[in-house]
Amino acid sequence: MTDTLPIDPPARLLMGPGPISAYPSVLRAMSAPLVGQYDPFMTHTMNETQELYRQVWATENEATLLVDGTSRAGIEAAIVSLIRPGDRVLVPVFGRFGHLLAEIAERALAEVHTIETEWGQVFTPAAIEEAIVRVKPTLLALVQGDTSTTMLQPLEEIGAICQRHGVLFYSDATASLGGNAFEADAWGLDAATAGLQKCLGGPSGSAPITLSERAVEVIRSRKRIEAGIREAGDEDAPDFVRSNYFDLGMILDYWGPRRLNHHTEATSMLYGARECARLLLIEGRGAVIARHELAGRAMLAGVEALGLAVFGDVAHKMSNVVAVYIPEGVPGDAARTAMLEDFGIEIGTSFGPLHGKVWRIGTMGYNARKDTVLTTLAALEAVLRRHGVAVPAGGGVEAASDVFAGRA
Amino acid sequence: MTDTLPIDPPARLLMGPGPISAYPSVLRAMSAPLVGQYDPFMTHTMNETQELYRQVWATENEATLLVDGTSRAGIEAAIVSLIRPGDRVLVPVFGRFGHLLAEIAERALAEVHTIETEWGQVFTPAAIEEAIVRVKPTLLALVQGDTSTTMLQPLEEIGAICQRHGVLFYSDATASLGGNAFEADAWGLDAATAGLQKCLGGPSGSAPITLSERAVEVIRSRKRIEAGIREAGDEDAPDFVRSNYFDLGMILDYWGPRRLNHHTEATSMLYGARECARLLLIEGRGAVIARHELAGRAMLAGVEALGLAVFGDVAHKMSNVVAVYIPEGVPGDAARTAMLEDFGIEIGTSFGPLHGKVWRIGTMGYNARKDTVLTTLAALEAVLRRHGVAVPAGGGVEAASDVFAGRA
Repeated sequence: MTDTLPIDPPARLLMGPGPISAYPSVLRAMSAPLVGQYDPFMTHTMNETQELYRQVWATENEATLLVDGTSRAGIEAAIVSLIRPGDRVLVPVFGRFGHLLAEIAERALAEVHTIETEWGQVFTPAAIEEAIVRVKPTLLALVQGDTSTTMLQPLEEIGAICQRHGVLFYSDATASLGGNAFEADAWGLDAATAGLQKCLGGPSGSAPITLSERAVEVIRSRKRIEAGIREAGDEDAPDFVRSNYFDLGMILDYWGPRRLNHHTEATSMLYGARECARLLLIEGRGAVIARHELAGRAMLAGVEALGLAVFGDVAHKMSNVVAVYIPEGVPGDAARTAMLEDFGIEIGTSFGPLHGKVWRIGTMGYNARKDTVLTTLAALEAVLRRHGVAVPAGGGVEAASDVFAGRA
Repeated sequence: MTDTLPIDPPARLLMGPGPISAYPSVLRAMSAPLVGQYDPFMTHTMNETQELYRQVWATENEATLLVDGTSRAGIEAAIVSLIRPGDRVLVPVFGRFGHLLAEIAERALAEVHTIETEWGQVFTPAAIEEAIVRVKPTLLALVQGDTSTTMLQPLEEIGAICQRHGVLFYSDATASLGGNAFEADAWGLDAATAGLQKCLGGPSGSAPITLSERAVEVIRSRKRIEAGIREAGDEDAPDFVRSNYFDLGMILDYWGPRRLNHHTEATSMLYGARECARLLLIEGRGAVIARHELAGRAMLAGVEALGLAVFGDVAHKMSNVVAVYIPEGVPGDAARTAMLEDFGIEIGTSFGPLHGKVWRIGTMGYNARKDTVLTTLAALEAVLRRHGVAVPAGGGVEAASDVFAGRA
């Protein structure tokens, strides 16, 4: 293997459901030199990153930080730190990632109750409240944007419902954060997690998380400090968290003023996460959401103008991804391969009941742009035509251009 | 925060116990463009990285891959996947990271038995065998190099002992891999994990792991596939792993030919990990170990020539780090701050019984070089003198130079 060359990835325009092409300045940040774990520059950068993410989440939560792992590391950290074995957890499932929340809670020995809706739909607040009243859960775990179906669950009214019934409210905003509104404090979230590889425009591998004071109280009540660094007065709670890596109490002590050593912070991922948040705030939270809304609306108009049928309840679609039915007679994977090999453009399929039935096309983060939308539609038109689909010449590009020009 | 500038870390020479300054080409690899999760380039790069790490670990293990998280993510993945609640685990503790292995096993509901030796010492094979006979554990979890004490536990004879008694053998090689010999197959390891931020010369955030066929069998017997992607015939084992993120069975299915979606691989960390292994193999495993041995011996000669007393059993020290007692009357932290602020050089202290008593000076990865050793010794001499220590002028640099020149 000594003839293995340095990494040299092919040029790709990632227009799938994520990961997507990172912002160039995020990639540059990834290669900044390392500093030591307790270097004043390092702890300053950790504090600064916390403050940036407070603004991204729209929260005053002191406990706003990163979990070192992919987005599902953030999910598992939130769930295993917030629930004790035997606690009831309610998971409304409207796609694959609802199943994931249920699965993680089950592994953590929770008593998991799910309600389900058809893929392509979301829940009404009333349906969620009814289930809360029936199940009486400790925690409601609710995906905001489920990429498997492209649906965006409205969260605005859910926090108040949870507060009324004394339920902790956690949301997985991996696929949605940055491209769609998220108001951690105003919406009454107790915990929320995300990843960088969707609308935040970075690489997978760091999971932003924010925790309300109520959530921190629960976590603090389950405190355990590991033997190697324990001091007099540090006592275990009997129901301490059954993971060391995901024990948010210890992770908070590492990010907080006590700076108690836990893991060695993934410095390059921290740099990348910081840059993702910095770019978002420089452009402006509202402006980034508006850019995603515009690009998403243009892509939607474009695929419809190509004659493709859109999957699911479009009124509740995330801005940043659309699913279309693969036209009859078109081999879905071969068409995706042609998009990738001939045009360097990646689009995705989906999971479970939608596998092989839909394509998912994303417009997120750096790639929520006019040129990426038009290029993707032009390539898609060519590929569809090559597979015998009668597509209106230039229709997709024109329809999307009209949206960008404000003519539609 | 819209006035926050792009990340711009100060110049630092990281000569502590790790993290250390990354190889420049590893930092360059970190900023390579992203590709999609199932892009042929991505799956090829994952396969290639597996093959590179097989050579780094000196193993034929098919199950050689990365866990997406810091080194302790790799440790937790190995332990929670290999042991069932109630299993007996034996942990010989000779420093902080032995306590960590015990702690993680306890959280995973293992029946944990420890044997301890004084900090600064290692165990004889006989002491470990005696404990195995007494405890009859399912798993022996043994740190190879414990940075807290700088000691290197000899592993050569342990695998045969474990095999004789039907015990799974896991070692945490985070601090040692690359800078000291490690022979996964020849030494009979069933599982071993590491991180990039020590002798491999990369950033924290990816954990190389290798698993023997025997270990994979145990993991496969605890199979569970998550609901969102489960197919007909996929059945849960009753004693499935109680973590989703660290379920090595699922992670193996993602890295293996089935390519079952689990997390979204941390692409930039994969690029970095690949480059760490590539550099090591181009230079040559033996050559890298010899370079660490030489730099470590030079640093040892240097600190001794400065009159500093070395901590622990030097015959069993890792090549890549040395601990010295802080001379009486010298404020240890102020001296470290002077090293950092005046010379841009980081050295470390330690944990637990050694906190504030020793400095730890590392020579690892990219920084196992003559210029870094001599610069550090010159700066240390100046700082010691400033704090009133009678140090022989130029003695440390001369002694280390003699080692590099083959004169000592």
